[in-house]
Amino acid sequence: MKNPPSLDSLIAALKVLPGVGPKSAQRMAFHLLQRDKAGAERLARALDRALTNLTHCERCNTFSETPVCNLCADASRRQDLLCVVEMPADLLMLEQAHCHDGLYFVLMGRISPLDGVGPRDVALEKLFHRALDGVVEEVIVATNFTAEGEATAHVVTELLKNRGLKLTRIARGMPVGGELEYVDPGTLAQAMFERRKL
Amino acid sequence: MKNPPSLDSLIAALKVLPGVGPKSAQRMAFHLLQRDKAGAERLARALDRALTNLTHCERCNTFSETPVCNLCADASRRQDLLCVVEMPADLLMLEQAHCHDGLYFVLMGRISPLDGVGPRDVALEKLFHRALDGVVEEVIVATNFTAEGEATAHVVTELLKNRGLKLTRIARGMPVGGELEYVDPGTLAQAMFERRKL
Ligand SMILES: [Zn+2]
Ligand SMILES: [Zn+2]
Repeated sequence: MKNPPSLDSLIAALKVLPGVGPKSAQRMAFHLLQRDKAGAERLARALDRALTNLTHCERCNTFSETPVCNLCADASRRQDLLCVVEMPADLLMLEQAHCHDGLYFVLMGRISPLDGVGPRDVALEKLFHRALDGVVEEVIVATNFTAEGEATAHVVTELLKNRGLKLTRIARGMPVGGELEYVDPGTLAQAMFERRKL
Repeated sequence: MKNPPSLDSLIAALKVLPGVGPKSAQRMAFHLLQRDKAGAERLARALDRALTNLTHCERCNTFSETPVCNLCADASRRQDLLCVVEMPADLLMLEQAHCHDGLYFVLMGRISPLDGVGPRDVALEKLFHRALDGVVEEVIVATNFTAEGEATAHVVTELLKNRGLKLTRIARGMPVGGELEYVDPGTLAQAMFERRKL
């Protein structure tokens, strides 16, 4: 006696989600099939739509539905200032703090040797070309103040130093081990204001 | 500055999963889009397939791809013995314990007044008709020994008593508060063996 194949497939497929093991995959499958078929349908469509529509912005590397994202296409932003963050959520937090009127580059990850994530797994080569376009004058490194974020900042600094760019790091205005995404906008604005030269 | 709409839709859709809040929905979306597009595609297809193919067995109410599930269609099982469980996972555990050669009825839930789940939210009417088909002689109530499971057992007993059926409850061979799904097969077999008349 086993589950029907389409139920087992769904349970197996839900395990691709980070943090979801066999028991919670099963609970999720039962919940969707029993209590929220509309939600399951919506999730399937959202996955399809995201897979079809989303690409990475040619300039800043964040998720975008157009080759160049709205922010990168905004001519009113300072073109000489490039802020490097780990993830799109970090970019959104900085925008919410209204402390940066330049552009961004989203690495889409952080270097984490313990998890097997090395320099090749973040968009360093794309950053290299973006930062050296001749227009950017200052690169602000705004990776997290975690061990991984600091390692990533180090690699970014090594990559871009001695290339005629001013390299800065946002100030450690936030608690050690803190992540941008969880900090209040005031603290974040302060950290941006007090950025120091690398 | 916001996320692209198809990214926001995906994050919102992931929140239909039980136990998934805004932050983990976002982490899941980034993981799927960045690191596991094949997994996202697989999940979308599995959802579609499950929604299309799965129905409830006419007889036992469990998930099935056919009107009557394989187990209910198996003429070699004792037709006079009906074991009532909360969820399909409980049925699978009992099968694994090889302690029941009759048929099942799956309530697809448990009564939980605190969560707003009342008698109308489990398949009591379907159970009533199934148990009183004239062939079933004994109904074994194998709901969990949690507060909800005991409340459900009580309601099932009230529903079926004085109808000429023998009503039994699996023995409390498992720890108080224990759930069938997490108990070892030996304990479960013992509990089935020591079932008592209600
Ligand atoms: Zn962009
Ligand atoms: Zn069945």
